[in-house]
Amino acid sequence: MAHFVVKSCFILFLFLVISQSALATKKTLKQRAPCKQFTLYYHDNAFTGNDVDNATSAIVINETKLGNFKFGKMYVFDDPMTKDENFRSPPVARAQGFYFYNMKTDYNAWFAYTLVFNSTVTKGTLNIMGADIMAAETRDFSVVGGTGDFFMTRGIVTIRTQTFEGAKYFRLKMDVKLYECY
Amino acid sequence: MAHFVVKSCFILFLFLVISQSALATKKTLKQRAPCKQFTLYYHDNAFTGNDVDNATSAIVINETKLGNFKFGKMYVFDDPMTKDENFRSPPVARAQGFYFYNMKTDYNAWFAYTLVFNSTVTKGTLNIMGADIMAAETRDFSVVGGTGDFFMTRGIVTIRTQTFEGAKYFRLKMDVKLYECY
Amino acid sequence: MAHFVVKSCFILFLFLVISQSALATKKTLKQRAPCKQFTLYYHDNAFTGNDVDNATSAIVINETKLGNFKFGKMYVFDDPMTKDENFRSPPVARAQGFYFYNMKTDYNAWFAYTLVFNSTVTKGTLNIMGADIMAAETRDFSVVGGTGDFFMTRGIVTIRTQTFEGAKYFRLKMDVKLYECY
Repeated sequence: MAHFVVKSCFILFLFLVISQSALATKKTLKQRAPCKQFTLYYHDNAFTGNDVDNATSAIVINETKLGNFKFGKMYVFDDPMTKDENFRSPPVARAQGFYFYNMKTDYNAWFAYTLVFNSTVTKGTLNIMGADIMAAETRDFSVVGGTGDFFMTRGIVTIRTQTFEGAKYFRLKMDVKLYECY
Repeated sequence: MAHFVVKSCFILFLFLVISQSALATKKTLKQRAPCKQFTLYYHDNAFTGNDVDNATSAIVINETKLGNFKFGKMYVFDDPMTKDENFRSPPVARAQGFYFYNMKTDYNAWFAYTLVFNSTVTKGTLNIMGADIMAAETRDFSVVGGTGDFFMTRGIVTIRTQTFEGAKYFRLKMDVKLYECY
Repeated sequence: MAHFVVKSCFILFLFLVISQSALATKKTLKQRAPCKQFTLYYHDNAFTGNDVDNATSAIVINETKLGNFKFGKMYVFDDPMTKDENFRSPPVARAQGFYFYNMKTDYNAWFAYTLVFNSTVTKGTLNIMGADIMAAETRDFSVVGGTGDFFMTRGIVTIRTQTFEGAKYFRLKMDVKLYECY
């Protein structure tokens, strides 16, 4: 009988050691698979001076003379985010923030903005910043915080330029991957 | 006796399973109750050109012509944060950063700033960003990081406009709720 | 024999309680010792109008008249980050972002930028923001997120001004300490 008890204890011990290891590595694993994921399309319609109805962004700082790639030019935006590529689709969120060009030898930009959700389905915000290294096919921004339905979240936004029509309109595909959800 | 040992082992097993579950859910629970919380008042005195002594913020970018709600207008500030609503109270921190208007159909702004604490009681900073959706009675910014006494913290700042005296002075109530403290 | 089993169980119990405590405090301890740490030097060469080849930053907003310390003056930069103090050393990263002066009674600035790594050794970004309280010998920024090799990281950057040659060139020593690594 005592032998059986020792054996049981040993099995119990093994079980606990294994479950402890699972706990210890839990966080790391969790990070690699998003707890929430969705794709939205960002539409930027730059104001040209007489299209107030359609425009959703505007130049607030003109480019400098450092190179030929609009170094320093800054836009403020309140851009619609849609579920598909059509910019006339009903927006499910707004992207509010700014970006500016910041390279003298190529086009390159820096973004900081908030995705504002205010529908019956989702309410809250995602705060995002990062370098838009345009030469790369995809580039990653950081989701540095969230509020409301996105309380305290963190994650990555992978962006991809889908179309760029001169200074007038461009569209980015944004894959939002959240790795910390509460 | 062996029976007693088996029973003891079983109780031990139960105890461990329960404590493991407590560990596993610990983080989630922690997030819902702030580990640190306080309220401060933000006073913005805009520079009008001849009030250097009182002013704590200044226009750095003029509004664009996109709509009638100051789209693109940007302010840089170094504003006092007080413990009560009186802007003449001794500041317990400074709010250093910027905001700009970013909506063509209503007043709406975007903020990024640092709360700088440098007293005998508290030393350190809180880094904050978010959309100021002015139409909402309260809105939430993200505390995306901290230094010094606020080492590595994260949280939410809930803001509420208390008074808005034209372009000259406004006061925000800021409820700082930190959910990660180290 | 049964006595031996009870004793074994008790030792097992002690072992498990201790390892549980270790797990519970793990996160807090981890925060205090960086999981990754390195020092880089930031070189800012301001554009003066005819030195496109050397310049890596440019004024995008002129100073206001609020005080005598360049209040509101903003620079956009794409600055080289090197492993030693020599700005001609091959850069291991770029710092892309902006800073502006924001105090009327002293020099003081506010920064937001991304460190972009794109070498055979390291690929990814670190997103950083904070107040540059120049009067302090060292000041801390927050690393609020990371991508690529710095996936989801957080931490602190401690900066120190090494040289400031008027409006033309300055160098900051940046100690990057990451406390969350995945």
